[in-house]
Formats: sequence, structure tokens, C-alpha cells
Amino acid sequence: MGDEEISKQLTEIGETIVQEVKNCEVPYLRIPSRTTSNIVYDEEGEFYVLGDKMTERRSGNIRHVKRLAQMLRLASFCKNELLSSGRHETKRGLYYISESWGDKLKFKSQDRGDDLMEDIEAMVGKPREDMNVTPQPSGSLYGDITLKFTNPQGDEMEVNALQTADGQSIGPRTCEANIIECNADKVIAIETDGMYNRLMEENAHEKFNAILVNLGGQAARATRRFIKRINEQKGIPAYVFTDSDPWGLHIAMVIIAGSAKAAHINERLATPDAQWLGVTATDIQEYKLRSEKLEDVDFKRLDELKDDPRYKRSDRLMNELDKWNSLGKKSEQQALLQYGFEYVVDEYLPAKFKELKAPGFQT
Amino acid sequence: MGDEEISKQLTEIGETIVQEVKNCEVPYLRIPSRTTSNIVYDEEGEFYVLGDKMTERRSGNIRHVKRLAQMLRLASFCKNELLSSGRHETKRGLYYISESWGDKLKFKSQDRGDDLMEDIEAMVGKPREDMNVTPQPSGSLYGDITLKFTNPQGDEMEVNALQTADGQSIGPRTCEANIIECNADKVIAIETDGMYNRLMEENAHEKFNAILVNLGGQAARATRRFIKRINEQKGIPAYVFTDSDPWGLHIAMVIIAGSAKAAHINERLATPDAQWLGVTATDIQEYKLRSEKLEDVDFKRLDELKDDPRYKRSDRLMNELDKWNSLGKKSEQQALLQYGFEYVVDEYLPAKFKELKAPGFQT
Repeated sequence: MGDEEISKQLTEIGETIVQEVKNCEVPYLRIPSRTTSNIVYDEEGEFYVLGDKMTERRSGNIRHVKRLAQMLRLASFCKNELLSSGRHETKRGLYYISESWGDKLKFKSQDRGDDLMEDIEAMVGKPREDMNVTPQPSGSLYGDITLKFTNPQGDEMEVNALQTADGQSIGPRTCEANIIECNADKVIAIETDGMYNRLMEENAHEKFNAILVNLGGQAARATRRFIKRINEQKGIPAYVFTDSDPWGLHIAMVIIAGSAKAAHINERLATPDAQWLGVTATDIQEYKLRSEKLEDVDFKRLDELKDDPRYKRSDRLMNELDKWNSLGKKSEQQALLQYGFEYVVDEYLPAKFKELKAPGFQT
Repeated sequence: MGDEEISKQLTEIGETIVQEVKNCEVPYLRIPSRTTSNIVYDEEGEFYVLGDKMTERRSGNIRHVKRLAQMLRLASFCKNELLSSGRHETKRGLYYISESWGDKLKFKSQDRGDDLMEDIEAMVGKPREDMNVTPQPSGSLYGDITLKFTNPQGDEMEVNALQTADGQSIGPRTCEANIIECNADKVIAIETDGMYNRLMEENAHEKFNAILVNLGGQAARATRRFIKRINEQKGIPAYVFTDSDPWGLHIAMVIIAGSAKAAHINERLATPDAQWLGVTATDIQEYKLRSEKLEDVDFKRLDELKDDPRYKRSDRLMNELDKWNSLGKKSEQQALLQYGFEYVVDEYLPAKFKELKAPGFQT
């Protein structure tokens, strides 16, 4: 893994300061600005990125000096105490650990530490997971993929996800595992635990030669990262299978085009050629699915998405947003169960793959 | 596994009806009543159980007949379509599946299906997980324990939890796995993902010869069940390690004494000889932990717990509730990180185990 590269980058942050001192300058750092005005939609990459604006954090400025010192302490901690020992910590853990850095340096609130962590991510251009600062585990995967990882005791092992009881959960070590072998030709990412289990039990991974990924709702960054890694390293497409409502569609969109909040790191997280497979608004009618009425909060969300540049580029998605509006209904992916356990693999998914591959289909 | 036994019990429900018809009776079922007035605290078992009150559901009563028919359909579904095929479904999935049972039988809302599922649990005296109706996966375990399970493709396999990257997640199949071997002499159940990972990385499973269980907040029923199974089958004690606040203590209490809502099934879920290890209210002072002020909702919770029979039987717990009240503070288990990564395994846990084993210690 890239531990050496990122350790070098973290060291460079400190060396910048040392060099400035040697040059008799008042030390400072230049950090990509993460303010709203510097978050821009990249038409080519098709995701949000940071613009060119930089913030300077100067030790000569009384309002900056504490932040600057905390940031250096944090970068040093990630390098010398996490990466070098192979340990992982949560953002919450960092907040408590900072207690031992003394009254001057400790984070008064967790927000401060989180904010500085994002500054460091923006400087090194890599997500905090690469610095062993890990999110809550969420998400898991199943299918013919072999991962090589170092277990918590430091032993190297290889595991094929098919050799697990309930799929390989994407925790701190799976998150950074090497993909040794992958015999699938696509990834299917699934919104709900229930449908993920259904597809596992109906052998969808064999029938579609796919890696099944359980998102468990909005995909965690670690899961998005993993989807991107399979997509890039193995050159296989990814499909996102969600509930039929604006929230489900947006789960797919965040996998495809990243989030505004992670603009400084989307290049490492977004999978621009992933596709939303459904359940579409049109499917509610087409498949006569059990549905519920859209509520005020759903309608409001539809309006927001229609104003979002990530949706405006796609006629298909804009049409689907209109369709929900006119139907006034939403549905869940598990609604397909009304036609029996096997319907989703025997009928629904084959039809959707055919649709996405039809000539003239617009993503 | 007990699939045959429970299939037999489900069949008996139907046979009761058949027998009544043959006897020219108007068919009915007797179901343990789950109303509040029938939930009683069992002083001997030290958990909530159902009293002796029964409800009769009669096909001759127009208000009962639909429920009775739905209940029989649900029991038949669990036996003939889940257990017999080895499939698992969620409660949400059952709601959608019922759509195919026709207008008369389908559940108008998920609540109806959930309610009938609990009636069936109460009749057979086993949790719905045994009927392959599974909760969202949550919780995982790590340590020297070997589980035998049938994977989603139907192959039998054995996995030692130490051979996993991030622990064995407790999904539908792990939930019903056989415990083949367990070389630990205790279970340590941990409230937060962050502390679970810390203990894994500090080799707590080796240092304390323990199975580490990640609760991820309030323990899922499947996780509680697993703790009970290890405790009973292997005869080893269980300890619960939580945040220092009334919510953390109650996470331990639900593992120890079950919940009122699950009174009909606590016998299968509660681990009465499990012990709360901490972080106690006293520890906040003792270990000078970073803390936050108790809020109104926390004080309210303290009052509720002081009125609860599960707490009243323990001087130790009543004292701790008073202690939080007088301190006006709460703390998190990760606060121990202020003394470094290894403090929790080198100092804190050994001190707590010593305390729990001291002569005259009151549970």
C-alpha cells in the first residue's frame, strides 16, 4: 500500500516549515481553500473539485498560530504513531488523544480536529483513511474476489470473499487490502441489507458474474473508495441498485460524482463511469410496484436535485425526477419481492442490464 | 441447527387448527399475551418474562379472523419458504412478500406483520432469527473462535475469527453458525467501533484470552443471542465495556437482563451472569477522564433507571446512578486514549477485572 508515499508527503509538510525557518521567514503553510466559493463542478471529470484558491496559515498571525501548530501535531501523529505502527484510529479517538498534547494543543471540540484533518487531506490529496484515520465500518462485499490484507495481529493473509458467511465487511483493514484476484466482470452496489442478502442467496454473483457490494444506505467513504478501486484496477463497470426515490438516486450519484463536502478528495472517491440501474421512477409503473406517497420532504429533495449540475447534464435523470413528481409516489427495491424470491435475478436485473446497453441509451 | 425442531413447532400451530376443525370446533389459537400487564420481572431468572395470561384468537370472531389467517400464512411461509430453502428475509421483506398473498391476506402496513411475527415467537418460544427472519446485520466478533456455517451458496465451511481482516460480522449465517471451538475464557463486549478496533490492534484478545464482541451501540438481538450462546455452551463469563453514561450502562443491562419489549423471548436472549465492567461513573473521577456535562435527557434517563426493577436489585448500580447524578458528568470509553494507545489494555482493563473479582464485590 501507499504508506511510504503518504508518510513522505506528511514529512514534507513539516520540512516546508523547517525550510522557512532556515530562510529566516516567519513560517506558514499554503492550504487549498475548502470554502463554498472554491468548490467548482468539473465538467470533464464530472464531479466537484476544489478551485485554485489557497489559504495561507501563518505563524506570525495570532489568529492562525494555534491552528497551524495543531495541524503540524496532527500530521506528525498520523505519520509517527498511526502509519508507522500500523494502528488505526477514529476521528473521535483523535479528539481524546489530543488531550495528551497539553492545554495549548488539545482540540477544544472534535470539530476542530475534523476540520484540520480535512486540511491535511486537501494538502496531500488523499483521504484520511490513507493516514489510518478510519470511519465506522459499514458496507460489505461478496463474490469471487481475493483480498490480501494484514490482520490486526500483523499477519498477512489472503481471503476470497466467497469464503465468508455474510460477506467481507469493509473495515479498516479490508479498506486498504490489495485486490489480488477478481474474476467478476461487473460490480453491483446495493442500497439495502435486505436486497444484498436476497441477491447473495439467489446467487446473483454467479448469474451476473458480479461482485455484490452492500452499501447499507448512503455509502461510506471507505465503500465508495473500494468500488472505485475495483472499477479502476480491474477495468470493470459498476452499477448502483437503489430504492425508487430521490434519496436512492442520490446514493448512486454520490458514488458516481462525489459529494460537494469531499470536493478536495473526490478524485480518489468518485467513479464517474458507474451507472444508476434503478429502481427508477418509471419502474414503479412498469412493474406495478407497491408504493407510498411522496411526502413534502421528498418533493423538496426532488426540487433540489433538479437544480444540481450533476443531474442537469443527464436527460435520463432529469426525466426520472419529473416522473417521481408527476406520479407522486416512491417505492423500495424490496418491493420486487412481491413477485417471489427469484424475480429480481430472473427478470428484473436482466431487463435493466439490457436497457442500459440498448443502442442510443443515455446515461 | 434447530431447523427441524422449529419446523415441527410451526407445523403444530397448523395442526391445532386442523384438529379443532375435525372436532367440529370453531378453530382458534391460544397465544401468550404480550400486553404490558402481562410483562413481569422474574426475580429468579433476573429478567422480564411473560406472565400466564393468554389471548385467544378465534375464527368465529369477525375481528379476529383476518389476523388468524394472516398468522397461519406467515407461519407457513417461514416453514415452507424460508426454513426449507435455507433463505433468510427481513421483516420489511415479509411486508412486500405478503403483497402476493392476495388482498385479503396482505399486510396493510409493516406493523401488522411485525406484530404477528412476535405472536409466533411467543407461541414457539424462539426468536424470529430461528425462523430465518433476520435483522440488519450489526456487530462482529474477533478472537480464537472457530465457527461452522453454510455460506450463501450452500457450502459448509469453517472459519476462525482470527483469520478475518476486521472481525467476523454477525449477519444471518454467522448468527446461526455452530461454535466448533473456542479457546478463550471470557467474552468482552464493547460498545463502540472505535474501542473495539483499539482492543483488536492492542491484542486484547490474546492478553485477556478473550473473544471481543463489537456491539456498535445498542446490541442487536442477533449479537445478544451470540453472546448468550458462547456464555452457555462454553461456560465462560461475559463482560460489557461501555461509555460512562446511563445509556452505556443500559446497553449492558439489556445484555444481562433483556428488554421489556422482548419479554416473550428473553429466556433465549438474556445472559444473566454477564457483568458490566465500566466505564463507571466512579471511573470518571478515578481516572480523571475528559467528560461532558449531563444534559436534561441524561438526567431524565437516570431517574427512569432508578425506578427500574433491574437496577433496584443492585446496590452497585444504584450507587453508580447516584454518582452520575452528583457529578453531573458523563464520559466516553475512548476518553481512555488520553493516556495512550496501550493504557486500556495495560492498566484500565486489568484494574477492572481485579475489582470485579475482589472479595465482597457486589454485582
